[in-house]
Amino acid sequence: MRLLFLGDVVGKSGRVAVTERLPGLVRDHALDCVVINGENAAHGFGITEAIYQELLDAGADCVTLGNHSWDQREAMVFIDRAPRLVRPVNYPSGTPGRGAALVHTRNGAQVLVVNVMGRVFMDAMDDPFAAVEREIEAAPLGRVADAIVVDIHAEATSEKQVMGHILDGRVSLVVGTHTHVPTADHRVLPGGTAYQTDVGMCGDYDGVIGMDKAEPMRRMREKTPGGKFEPASGVATLSGIIVEIGANGLATAVTPLRVGGALSQTA
Amino acid sequence: MRLLFLGDVVGKSGRVAVTERLPGLVRDHALDCVVINGENAAHGFGITEAIYQELLDAGADCVTLGNHSWDQREAMVFIDRAPRLVRPVNYPSGTPGRGAALVHTRNGAQVLVVNVMGRVFMDAMDDPFAAVEREIEAAPLGRVADAIVVDIHAEATSEKQVMGHILDGRVSLVVGTHTHVPTADHRVLPGGTAYQTDVGMCGDYDGVIGMDKAEPMRRMREKTPGGKFEPASGVATLSGIIVEIGANGLATAVTPLRVGGALSQTA
Amino acid sequence: MRLLFLGDVVGKSGRVAVTERLPGLVRDHALDCVVINGENAAHGFGITEAIYQELLDAGADCVTLGNHSWDQREAMVFIDRAPRLVRPVNYPSGTPGRGAALVHTRNGAQVLVVNVMGRVFMDAMDDPFAAVEREIEAAPLGRVADAIVVDIHAEATSEKQVMGHILDGRVSLVVGTHTHVPTADHRVLPGGTAYQTDVGMCGDYDGVIGMDKAEPMRRMREKTPGGKFEPASGVATLSGIIVEIGANGLATAVTPLRVGGALSQTA
Amino acid sequence: MRLLFLGDVVGKSGRVAVTERLPGLVRDHALDCVVINGENAAHGFGITEAIYQELLDAGADCVTLGNHSWDQREAMVFIDRAPRLVRPVNYPSGTPGRGAALVHTRNGAQVLVVNVMGRVFMDAMDDPFAAVEREIEAAPLGRVADAIVVDIHAEATSEKQVMGHILDGRVSLVVGTHTHVPTADHRVLPGGTAYQTDVGMCGDYDGVIGMDKAEPMRRMREKTPGGKFEPASGVATLSGIIVEIGANGLATAVTPLRVGGALSQTA
Ligand SMILES: [Fe+2]
Ligand SMILES: [Fe+2]
Ligand SMILES: [Fe+2]
Ligand SMILES: [Fe+2]
Ligand SMILES: [Fe+2]
Ligand SMILES: [Fe+2]
Ligand SMILES: [Fe+2]
Ligand SMILES: [Fe+2]
Repeated sequence: MRLLFLGDVVGKSGRVAVTERLPGLVRDHALDCVVINGENAAHGFGITEAIYQELLDAGADCVTLGNHSWDQREAMVFIDRAPRLVRPVNYPSGTPGRGAALVHTRNGAQVLVVNVMGRVFMDAMDDPFAAVEREIEAAPLGRVADAIVVDIHAEATSEKQVMGHILDGRVSLVVGTHTHVPTADHRVLPGGTAYQTDVGMCGDYDGVIGMDKAEPMRRMREKTPGGKFEPASGVATLSGIIVEIGANGLATAVTPLRVGGALSQTA
Repeated sequence: MRLLFLGDVVGKSGRVAVTERLPGLVRDHALDCVVINGENAAHGFGITEAIYQELLDAGADCVTLGNHSWDQREAMVFIDRAPRLVRPVNYPSGTPGRGAALVHTRNGAQVLVVNVMGRVFMDAMDDPFAAVEREIEAAPLGRVADAIVVDIHAEATSEKQVMGHILDGRVSLVVGTHTHVPTADHRVLPGGTAYQTDVGMCGDYDGVIGMDKAEPMRRMREKTPGGKFEPASGVATLSGIIVEIGANGLATAVTPLRVGGALSQTA
Repeated sequence: MRLLFLGDVVGKSGRVAVTERLPGLVRDHALDCVVINGENAAHGFGITEAIYQELLDAGADCVTLGNHSWDQREAMVFIDRAPRLVRPVNYPSGTPGRGAALVHTRNGAQVLVVNVMGRVFMDAMDDPFAAVEREIEAAPLGRVADAIVVDIHAEATSEKQVMGHILDGRVSLVVGTHTHVPTADHRVLPGGTAYQTDVGMCGDYDGVIGMDKAEPMRRMREKTPGGKFEPASGVATLSGIIVEIGANGLATAVTPLRVGGALSQTA
Repeated sequence: MRLLFLGDVVGKSGRVAVTERLPGLVRDHALDCVVINGENAAHGFGITEAIYQELLDAGADCVTLGNHSWDQREAMVFIDRAPRLVRPVNYPSGTPGRGAALVHTRNGAQVLVVNVMGRVFMDAMDDPFAAVEREIEAAPLGRVADAIVVDIHAEATSEKQVMGHILDGRVSLVVGTHTHVPTADHRVLPGGTAYQTDVGMCGDYDGVIGMDKAEPMRRMREKTPGGKFEPASGVATLSGIIVEIGANGLATAVTPLRVGGALSQTA
């Protein structure tokens, strides 16, 4: 199985890149499953039902979220009728939606997608490690799930690396999101789990984490409020990782994907 | 001019990689200047005078530091007789050492190296943007300095990107350190400044930010004290960035460098 | 001289308490100078020119601010024509307004009021200790200023206590604001400086830091957005400290003040 | 029933105050139950078995902890044979010891003591609100427990106030610890729960949160390592709260207690 994970889609620039390029990528790379982090898809903040549908139509099998899950309030409502939308699993019990989904892919496989939020330099959440353990125990790799993807939405490299090592050999991919910058440490860990500390964003990199750079540049120095944060409107780089997954659900190869926009391009 | 910046050297594994490989890299890439972040060189914590000398002997023209600057107390003393050792410029006035150094390189050029610490998710420091401005005003690119390197030692991608945009066109390279994971966003910004959010570490990537993984894996889940943090002892990846700098001091090309160890290798 | 400092006025409830009670307090306690923290006076967030004027009319000689200084954007404009309005001194240079004011009081004295923000668990500001030193050097106690008040707007008790000890003997009062809860450690330090870690707020204590309690109670558990934060509308406790200041500008006695509302009342 | 809660005992100065004064307080105030936070009892950092015994011998019925629980490693071992020692309940499962204890007091009553850690500006813990709910459901007030004491060890006033409001009417006392400064907002909430945002420490207040002030004063300005943090050795103020508890387990009155040392004395 060949799976593509795309990082945080930021605003219109990011969505256009997904819509225009994803169908071709699915075809060219013979992708069986596509997971996209959509927490910034709606003008940089959250996701709407229309945009969720747009991402599915473009080829996503599942959409994950993060600390911006509820920036668009409608997400708290439509998530309950959106079976392929997954928010962090370690929100308190009673939170709308689900933290993991077993997704049927176009090739008939079952892919478990888990979204989890880190706690270092982030808001107070329940234990991310215990929460993920519960999900993969409920749908173990090779028995219930043909592949397992864990999107750890976190700030600190250490917390993401710990998640990778803990799950190594038991899931197909541990991939970080949230920093909006792809890391160059994509690889298959010794136990067979594909890993990348952060997959980067699908957005305009000639900004500040995908937002127009003028206001963040001003605000970090002047410490006064001012204009709003708006997504940068230049051409987006589609930033993701492609994972080759064997019959046992473990990874055999990973390839970074960076197409379009300001970043260096992958083949 | 061709300049190499190597990220945080972590412990013996990192030092061995530098010592063994740097001379060859200097020769093969015809490097004119080498800057190395050494804040974790002494068993993961700080730097000693002997190790500082070891890095110079291996080919470094300048060594930068970070939040671990003083983990080895002797650094507070020997830094005053170590003209090529630079600690963050935005420590309070009265701090030992210097935050910038104008380094004479083997080709007779003058390279200004500035080390600065971010403040987002970090300890309280003076304004990093104002501090860097003062240094580059004192030794402007093309007039006093043939090249300017700014090592921003910081956690948040946003703060590092803001530093890059603010300095674009006025320095040769803005490079991030501290997260110990290389990013894949190396490029030349529109104004001619080479940029990479984080250059990664020179250390064993089969650990947690260069430390043996067992203890961090345990501690993040159990929240109890335990063993000490020790550097991972596997083969290090030398992680850096090579910048081609023109006569005007601006960058014309950047190439990521990853040699040895667990990460994907650059050519 | 007898000086009263009142903590963060929160919304209408806090303003009504000030307006109704302050004139009587000035008369009954023969107050020579009144300083009020007004950072939450406008519906809990910032201050308007009309409210600034209202506080002066009620008897304030000077109004201080904090991390909410600019929540009402007009404050960035009118502060430059409001000589008795003081914002944190350790904002970056170029910030509107002033961080210290030498205020002429009704008894002909000159009182230097300095507002400064802490950095522990707070936004990144310039060094608060260095910034305050500069202000008191410019108007030393007993020579230029008859009294000096330092409002340290900070979260951590340690940082506030350090400020108190550092300034002990050189200012009349170091008083903390920001936590919205009065501490019971009011006293005169050995060198003659009055000190209280936090003076509390002028607001309704049957809430959460002066805001209606329903939404914070929900949000801390549910981690989802919801209603807005509104000031609690019950009767406010006026919370302050009265300092007796000698001819040399040092304190001879302190008395906590808590009048009205839910807290235990002082005489 | 009359219950005394004493805040964080810091070092020898704090222990001497407890040993010398507690027996007299028990007699004079006819106390039925004494709970003491002991997280800083061993030279400022953690607790030993000998000190735990010393506190019991002085009159404590129960000892609570906090973020310093394990600073003395032996605590991780002896806590399992120390039935009256309670560590934060929201540590991960598998942590040594217990987060709540049902203590038999000298008057034959059963007092449930729960220790819980906040998460705002603190280390990542499990949900404190959910964790406390579980404990009080297991031993409800008036049915299993004659009184319930919740020690919320936390930094932010907002989080402590939320805990107070949530538990109002269901426990006897919600008392904050950790900031080492007593607040003046002791009162009985509308539902009958006694509340104080922070009870302060039993230690020398002429320091910085109970530690000798020289080193914190230096380090906050200089940002370099230096001497060790040592407890201040002056006379301690015993800082606590006395709660009158009715037959239904709810509070009818609270009185702050401050005896000895630098703070203003209660009657
Ligand atoms: Fe994002
Ligand atoms: Fe995010
Ligand atoms: Fe480092
Ligand atoms: Fe660092
Ligand atoms: Fe406030
Ligand atoms: Fe504030
Ligand atoms: Fe404590
Ligand atoms: Fe504590």
